[in-house]
Amino acid sequence: MAQQAVIGVTGLGVMGRNLARNFARHGYAVAVHNRTPTKTKALMEEFGHEGDFIPAETPQEFVASLARPRKMVIMVQAGASTDAVIDEYAPLLEPGDILIDGGNAHFADTRRREQALRERGIHFVGVGISGGEQGALEGPSIMPGGSPEAYESLGPILEDIAAKVDGVPCCTYVGPDGAGHFVKMVHNGIEYADMQLIAEAYDLLRKASGMAPGEIAETFRTWNEGRLGSYLIEITADVLSHVDKATGKPFVDIVLDQAEQKGTGRWTVQAALDLGVPVTGIAEATFARSLSGHVDMRGAARGLAGPSGGGLGSSFADAVEQALYASKVVAYAQGFNEIQAGSAEYGWNIDLGAMATIWRGGCIIRAKFLDRIREAYETDPATPTLLTDARFAAEVGDAQDAWRDVAVTATRSGIPAPGFASSLAYYDGLRADRLPAALIQAQRDFFGAHTYRRTDREGVFHTQWELDDRPEARTDA
Amino acid sequence: MAQQAVIGVTGLGVMGRNLARNFARHGYAVAVHNRTPTKTKALMEEFGHEGDFIPAETPQEFVASLARPRKMVIMVQAGASTDAVIDEYAPLLEPGDILIDGGNAHFADTRRREQALRERGIHFVGVGISGGEQGALEGPSIMPGGSPEAYESLGPILEDIAAKVDGVPCCTYVGPDGAGHFVKMVHNGIEYADMQLIAEAYDLLRKASGMAPGEIAETFRTWNEGRLGSYLIEITADVLSHVDKATGKPFVDIVLDQAEQKGTGRWTVQAALDLGVPVTGIAEATFARSLSGHVDMRGAARGLAGPSGGGLGSSFADAVEQALYASKVVAYAQGFNEIQAGSAEYGWNIDLGAMATIWRGGCIIRAKFLDRIREAYETDPATPTLLTDARFAAEVGDAQDAWRDVAVTATRSGIPAPGFASSLAYYDGLRADRLPAALIQAQRDFFGAHTYRRTDREGVFHTQWELDDRPEARTDA
Repeated sequence: MAQQAVIGVTGLGVMGRNLARNFARHGYAVAVHNRTPTKTKALMEEFGHEGDFIPAETPQEFVASLARPRKMVIMVQAGASTDAVIDEYAPLLEPGDILIDGGNAHFADTRRREQALRERGIHFVGVGISGGEQGALEGPSIMPGGSPEAYESLGPILEDIAAKVDGVPCCTYVGPDGAGHFVKMVHNGIEYADMQLIAEAYDLLRKASGMAPGEIAETFRTWNEGRLGSYLIEITADVLSHVDKATGKPFVDIVLDQAEQKGTGRWTVQAALDLGVPVTGIAEATFARSLSGHVDMRGAARGLAGPSGGGLGSSFADAVEQALYASKVVAYAQGFNEIQAGSAEYGWNIDLGAMATIWRGGCIIRAKFLDRIREAYETDPATPTLLTDARFAAEVGDAQDAWRDVAVTATRSGIPAPGFASSLAYYDGLRADRLPAALIQAQRDFFGAHTYRRTDREGVFHTQWELDDRPEARTDA
Repeated sequence: MAQQAVIGVTGLGVMGRNLARNFARHGYAVAVHNRTPTKTKALMEEFGHEGDFIPAETPQEFVASLARPRKMVIMVQAGASTDAVIDEYAPLLEPGDILIDGGNAHFADTRRREQALRERGIHFVGVGISGGEQGALEGPSIMPGGSPEAYESLGPILEDIAAKVDGVPCCTYVGPDGAGHFVKMVHNGIEYADMQLIAEAYDLLRKASGMAPGEIAETFRTWNEGRLGSYLIEITADVLSHVDKATGKPFVDIVLDQAEQKGTGRWTVQAALDLGVPVTGIAEATFARSLSGHVDMRGAARGLAGPSGGGLGSSFADAVEQALYASKVVAYAQGFNEIQAGSAEYGWNIDLGAMATIWRGGCIIRAKFLDRIREAYETDPATPTLLTDARFAAEVGDAQDAWRDVAVTATRSGIPAPGFASSLAYYDGLRADRLPAALIQAQRDFFGAHTYRRTDREGVFHTQWELDDRPEARTDA
């Protein structure tokens, strides 16, 4: 009888390949399979010497090579591909076998799949894996869900290949069915918030203090020695001290300030809304990325008035009226943008001005104000945001000193005013010439090779961060 | 042949009943039906004299009484009930008939239902109806989706019974399939933001200016004459000038400050996340309501430090470090609360401290900080929020003057810092002794009879606002 594998990996993209190599490097015989065999061959040729790989050309061959109870990891694109692979393999497996999904599945899908496979006696283990390509190879943080029985035989292997901190593996049994993917989702949501906060800190030091990127990098390096010490602070320092070779400019300045996203931040906020948990930080971070990408709105808003620094010259109640009015314009502008987007997405061809018209009576938000919105859309049916309508722009411009005063009063007095604060930040975000989204996109390129676009030429770029003689980067990975 | 009805209504709860009466008052013969016939009888007895009602005891009788093409409005609880009614009636209808859903359906359900019925030749019209009970009776704002063909015969009737402003009906064809329910959803999202902003304005005038509710009511009445003129400002003035008869106290002070919600705000934000539209105002408003209801967290957070008013005494970069640290604690506290809630909802029994442990290495958010979170959960596994852990509470307390300074600098300089601002507002919201959620809940009781709870006794209450000798209320409805 041929040698049998302790575990198998199907789907040999960069994550699957590196995970298989990680198993092999830890001495496990690992079966490897890919839908198109070229990737399997490439893995064997390039890395076959690293350990005990057992290549398979067909699912049947792959399954036959696994020791019982079989343990196989699916590393394919989350969604329909995962279901297709499950449908293909489930008939080949036997009760007691363990099917592991290491992709970025939504936890609700994992719950559904786990239940369906449980009825056939197969353990389905949804595993959150964090750390990107390098983590998969050198030791990721692993969040496995599924049954405790499955964890009994699978857990020790996962703990073995996980990252270690003070000798403690970054892997533990999370909970039944979708618990692992849920925790991975929240992990990513927190990551969104963390990155946004770091980006804001950078932006303030740059714009309010006039510090150069290199100086800010030094500040971050100092912070990294203290309570803020973390991978993200560390790589931020690296990103900020990096100089673009082509232009000689600070790297962060040549990155287009439009941050991209892959969906887990969005999922985290959507799940939190269902659960009734206020995750305002993750929501603001997710929306800050969306805002940065709305080139049309930002272009139109660039001319909007900024702080005049002038005195208030009115009573506090008057200032609150101005703040309320300006924030209200923002709220309606956002809502109408959502209708515009829904109409485009679903092909509804909605007349925005007509919506303002039919809301003028009968409903709860009826207001004089809606006439102005109707007029704004009559003037320009395609206006990217109501904030740039001439009248609204002028009114909000007039109101903004008072608006800022009220926000400052709330902040200084410790009175919570999340609505006023976030609508003012939205206004300032829209009209900003340049957003710290550029830093976020650079961080994403650093840790996930997510690429970036540049301010000075077309195309999509990736910087080879590791090869850049900066040994302090990724020390932790 | 018996007289035939122009339109029918099935589901005679208060909204369905009032809509049927509205049709009848406008001279339409209207068929009425309810699953249990007692409601049909009650309608005939109480309001039968108002117009031409044709009561039916069975679906067959109901359908037979409708003139062709049949037009029937379903007014039942959104969700499974709507599907059940559709399944019951669809076989009784003929191609060209118009099935109208006047409930608060999610637009995705409306899209699904419209497609299924279109294949059978039946027009399915999802209609958003806003204005509550009184609007349904006296003239609501109506947002119909569905096919233009269906609108051709249905539209004139709906426009007839809708509210009018300057003679223009508050009803127009919105767009195909789910467009009507989508626009109604966004309408409600905007309503959330509007109410939250008004509540913050009230709170600032009360706490920062020391104005009494009656004085604030007068201020709102003045504002209502100006550009802020609206139903919500108007009823806010009414609510704020209302004195609780039982205690003699301002009514807003005896309302429990925990605002409730029915889901459309949540849907609006979830849809906006899918569409990539930043609706930060609606998100903050929705989360502000969730926060107000987290009695456990708020109770624990009540002792957290508020602004000391002390000077800064540190450099701006130091202040940014403090702001970043404090905001980071908030972001992680929120994320861990989401895991806690997911674990409770799905029965996962997740060990929160263990999650902090396995995130210490391998993953993107690895940080020293996670050791402190682990320790916090070791000290108190059930801590309602990390912010009240002794060490985090002390650190954030020390950081808060600087945190506020940084938020103020961002606000004054026009530099967008939505993450810093919203996490500070969250901190102040959690530790607030009393939130303006009380005003929101009072508004909801005013316009939707959503009831409220009191600070001074158990139970659920509703105030008969109309009977309260305040003729200025609801003038618009």
